[in-house]
Amino acid sequence: MTGTRVAVLGAAGYAGAIAAQILYRHPAFELAHVTARAEAGQRLDDVHPRTRVPLQLEAYDADKHAVDAAVVAYPHGAAAPVVAELRSRGTRVVDLSADFRLRDRGIYEDWYGEHKAPEYFGQGVYGLPELTRDDVVEADLVANPGCYPTASLLGLAPLARAGLIGDVVIDAKSGVSGAGRAATATTHFISADENVSPYKIEGHRHTPEIEQELGALGNDVTITFTPHLLPLAQGELVSCYVTPSRELGEGELDELYDDAYAREPFVELRSGPVGVLEVRDSNYCRISLHHDPRTGRIIVFAAIDNLWKGAASQAVQNLNLMFGRPESEALL
Amino acid sequence: MTGTRVAVLGAAGYAGAIAAQILYRHPAFELAHVTARAEAGQRLDDVHPRTRVPLQLEAYDADKHAVDAAVVAYPHGAAAPVVAELRSRGTRVVDLSADFRLRDRGIYEDWYGEHKAPEYFGQGVYGLPELTRDDVVEADLVANPGCYPTASLLGLAPLARAGLIGDVVIDAKSGVSGAGRAATATTHFISADENVSPYKIEGHRHTPEIEQELGALGNDVTITFTPHLLPLAQGELVSCYVTPSRELGEGELDELYDDAYAREPFVELRSGPVGVLEVRDSNYCRISLHHDPRTGRIIVFAAIDNLWKGAASQAVQNLNLMFGRPESEALL
Amino acid sequence: MTGTRVAVLGAAGYAGAIAAQILYRHPAFELAHVTARAEAGQRLDDVHPRTRVPLQLEAYDADKHAVDAAVVAYPHGAAAPVVAELRSRGTRVVDLSADFRLRDRGIYEDWYGEHKAPEYFGQGVYGLPELTRDDVVEADLVANPGCYPTASLLGLAPLARAGLIGDVVIDAKSGVSGAGRAATATTHFISADENVSPYKIEGHRHTPEIEQELGALGNDVTITFTPHLLPLAQGELVSCYVTPSRELGEGELDELYDDAYAREPFVELRSGPVGVLEVRDSNYCRISLHHDPRTGRIIVFAAIDNLWKGAASQAVQNLNLMFGRPESEALL
Amino acid sequence: MTGTRVAVLGAAGYAGAIAAQILYRHPAFELAHVTARAEAGQRLDDVHPRTRVPLQLEAYDADKHAVDAAVVAYPHGAAAPVVAELRSRGTRVVDLSADFRLRDRGIYEDWYGEHKAPEYFGQGVYGLPELTRDDVVEADLVANPGCYPTASLLGLAPLARAGLIGDVVIDAKSGVSGAGRAATATTHFISADENVSPYKIEGHRHTPEIEQELGALGNDVTITFTPHLLPLAQGELVSCYVTPSRELGEGELDELYDDAYAREPFVELRSGPVGVLEVRDSNYCRISLHHDPRTGRIIVFAAIDNLWKGAASQAVQNLNLMFGRPESEALL
Repeated sequence: MTGTRVAVLGAAGYAGAIAAQILYRHPAFELAHVTARAEAGQRLDDVHPRTRVPLQLEAYDADKHAVDAAVVAYPHGAAAPVVAELRSRGTRVVDLSADFRLRDRGIYEDWYGEHKAPEYFGQGVYGLPELTRDDVVEADLVANPGCYPTASLLGLAPLARAGLIGDVVIDAKSGVSGAGRAATATTHFISADENVSPYKIEGHRHTPEIEQELGALGNDVTITFTPHLLPLAQGELVSCYVTPSRELGEGELDELYDDAYAREPFVELRSGPVGVLEVRDSNYCRISLHHDPRTGRIIVFAAIDNLWKGAASQAVQNLNLMFGRPESEALL
Repeated sequence: MTGTRVAVLGAAGYAGAIAAQILYRHPAFELAHVTARAEAGQRLDDVHPRTRVPLQLEAYDADKHAVDAAVVAYPHGAAAPVVAELRSRGTRVVDLSADFRLRDRGIYEDWYGEHKAPEYFGQGVYGLPELTRDDVVEADLVANPGCYPTASLLGLAPLARAGLIGDVVIDAKSGVSGAGRAATATTHFISADENVSPYKIEGHRHTPEIEQELGALGNDVTITFTPHLLPLAQGELVSCYVTPSRELGEGELDELYDDAYAREPFVELRSGPVGVLEVRDSNYCRISLHHDPRTGRIIVFAAIDNLWKGAASQAVQNLNLMFGRPESEALL
Repeated sequence: MTGTRVAVLGAAGYAGAIAAQILYRHPAFELAHVTARAEAGQRLDDVHPRTRVPLQLEAYDADKHAVDAAVVAYPHGAAAPVVAELRSRGTRVVDLSADFRLRDRGIYEDWYGEHKAPEYFGQGVYGLPELTRDDVVEADLVANPGCYPTASLLGLAPLARAGLIGDVVIDAKSGVSGAGRAATATTHFISADENVSPYKIEGHRHTPEIEQELGALGNDVTITFTPHLLPLAQGELVSCYVTPSRELGEGELDELYDDAYAREPFVELRSGPVGVLEVRDSNYCRISLHHDPRTGRIIVFAAIDNLWKGAASQAVQNLNLMFGRPESEALL
Repeated sequence: MTGTRVAVLGAAGYAGAIAAQILYRHPAFELAHVTARAEAGQRLDDVHPRTRVPLQLEAYDADKHAVDAAVVAYPHGAAAPVVAELRSRGTRVVDLSADFRLRDRGIYEDWYGEHKAPEYFGQGVYGLPELTRDDVVEADLVANPGCYPTASLLGLAPLARAGLIGDVVIDAKSGVSGAGRAATATTHFISADENVSPYKIEGHRHTPEIEQELGALGNDVTITFTPHLLPLAQGELVSCYVTPSRELGEGELDELYDDAYAREPFVELRSGPVGVLEVRDSNYCRISLHHDPRTGRIIVFAAIDNLWKGAASQAVQNLNLMFGRPESEALL
């Protein structure tokens, strides 16, 4: 066998390009196609030199691109019909959009508008391997988590499983690549440089995604989630301030996190501060855990690269699981 | 009269240099002396070109530098004895250190060690003009607030006066100048660039200062305060997540802030997001106020320039008040 | 008299906004109008908070905006007809575009296309006060120099006047604000951050402007000029590598520069390296002069803020001269 | 065979850490030891998390660390005696310092002081594989080029071999990591951020190294070389302004570069501008070639990552050649 044939659809975006870059060097997958709309006809390594993927970007063609597996890196809303088409031809899909993450149709429509492939709505397996590994292995349609949910859920999961989150404030900080490749007032260098500001204060669409998955872990809680834009390219830090629902026993906190993550290849528990630079260009998540005896609060920091563990490399981690490969193949 | 003679002691540090820069152009004050230790003998505009203050830095000399007023920009602990000496000769002082901010001696010593001018301990008037204007006018020794307390207290004061803060998480973000002029692993470009990380998670010494002043406003509360280091030079944003102690009436929140700040020249209320770039190199504080109906939380963002409103320009604002000048003179 | 009434046309751009900011605080000028196209109706301090100019941006109206003086901050090509209209009503103009800088119509059209007010072509006085002060005083139409020509000409003028430039390579480095306020692939944070690259290698339109003015100083020379984009907001450094046309006498070089600049308020000669941060947000130009005995080359570095001395504050310097004010009024 | 055993001496520095990171994942080399002085006892991935090399840093021990091969990443001057010791025990060495690059002892001593292993002076093979591949294959002591020489020589070699460089100005721009890991006024975030300035204007020690190697290619020329410090972490761009020694034939220029580099895996010829971000974290060098018909000048831009192709990854490229491995192994 020459390997599983994989396409990356939407490879001109930041996350798609990195997915292509990783898959091009993956020993078990063959990167058969990379697609783009505006950039079709150009080579991927001309659009994104650092990928060094010498493949030509093609316009998407349902007949041609229904390969063994596809990573779909389309905008929210635009992904659904393409994913449906791919699924109908048997292609296994990891979708980077939000279109198959939510399980409540009303909530989806509140945030993203009409769903364009309703027959598949809710059929995605939420692909955060550290939490949903067993489901991913069997899945044909994996909904790759959002970047903020990835960091937040990895940071909070051990508490959520124990039902310990009485209340939580998540103050999230992200680099500019999180705002995408479009040239806007927000992504202009002069706006972002030497600046920091909150955004989407009245509500970010990652909020319901985080609440849904905390609930799935057994902890229903209404969260406060506020993102901030920072003057750096890649990287995301969530600072989670948890009011526990009950008092913790001696050593209980550390034990919960050790049990959850001691054997995880991509989660690094640290006692001191963590910085996003430590996980840049990688699939790692660094977590730092604190308990404030003055207030009783638990404070958890989780750092990821929003384009890698928060999108592209996590998609490959999911593909590895789906196709029976070692989970960390091509990711270390 | 040729104007009030002022000295800036410790003018080679970031905040001292800016205080000197403002005072040198102030129509009512004469910048008589600038002092420094290691840099004595150099000109201030050689050490800090942007000040364009062509004065020579002198070694501190108690006899010479007991002028009408002094801004003391010394490290915590080192300020106290110098301030005492200046006060004993009748010089009115604005002290940028923490040495005269706290009123509980035990708390001071926990965070800063022994106090080196105990006879003056607790005698500073806390100099946050928007909150303590009347006291500053009469004061001979003004304790200029810390940068984080300045932003946090301006952001929270209207709630504190109404006793509305049941609980609060302050997630603070600061540029690198907050870490001072010393070359350290933390301030190395390669550590800070493209990075963000929390620091002093187990406790920052601005915590008791904020709690003390919230208490002085009538709201005793144990806060959670966590600072983060950001890859930018100047600027500080505090994101304050308040659990109110009671339900708020219709329009009550906006009214509290309007009442507090509508006539303040240096506080700008904004309904949308605020960024630190908007207040850079200025004495302004921008505040953005939000109420989350889902959680009942009040979220307040306050942005300042840590070196200006958080230190140097606020010192001049205090001097203006102390010497009967228009409060915003040389600051607009 | 209530002061000279001035309008800034195109005040939503970076340079126009700063011109408005300076003029709003100018003791002798009254900022009567600020105009903008897309942003008309908004307040200038909402579009550019740091200006703190609480005036409403208006759509341009020839009848209303023909005041005593105007700073025109329009794109190249678009400025000419508006300037013509203002001049026909007697308004004295400082134009920030290139439309009245060049004196060779063919060269203008090669770089900028058809000139839209040919009757005024070539009638601008080149407004680099340190070189053309006497002409500016009398001028009704001042062509404010480009940012690169400002730095390059200040750096090279003493040599040019002595006819000493046999050959010169100008390697220029600029911050991103030089690329303007439009959101483009080039100004996207992710493109500019952590990057440096040359641009317009085959020819930048500032080249003929520099050559014209060196010629006007008596030194006809074909220059090599290459700009580079740097990851910073404001600031411009030109590194000028001059092959002298003859050997220099002992001390001759320093003498030339001292003679030229010792009495200039905005030119600072330095023997060591100069950095753009030293002149940020100011009308100053810092020059550092070197002679390499190994190669015989003269190396001159000149640093300015591209938006200030390279555009907005230099426009005010010109206005000061035109209206008989102290040249540095409102600029120190 | 278990693979060639390699040590990285000085692995706590930026370049040493990256060399260790690459070698740890190299299929043919076994990273047997990593050493450091101040950081001995710590794990490399604690000091430099992104390496994810879980080895403990050891104090250097001549007996233990004389393995098959060593990458020595010591400061200039300090490397020589250690290299001598390793060589005397038969260890093949790639030395990142300047101690074995120069062939003129007087020039070495002018720039670096006394040489501490004079018996080995001048015995290093200059390890720029694209130019000296055949010699490297046979070498036991490879002097890894400096970062500026790497970019400059790759950019200029095709011209030098043809004897075409009559005169050249090299304007070099480097990120802050080039200044090393020591916390100094220069590397302080507040000094470097939003700034650009030339340094070592009176002479940089890479100048004689570049001249030596241009001479070795057959083109003796006295160069002008001026480095500048830029606000970015990694990356180096050299802008080379060449006055050719004779007129060039039609197409001659492109042909020279194509002949030199068309088959080189790590040199990328581009017709448009090149940026350092395109080669970040890689062993690639991007070259952009221009001819200015107005001046007759040839302009060559070459971009590398100063820590990778300018140091660590080039060291591995040399090791690959020395030990008969595919030249690009572990580097693509």
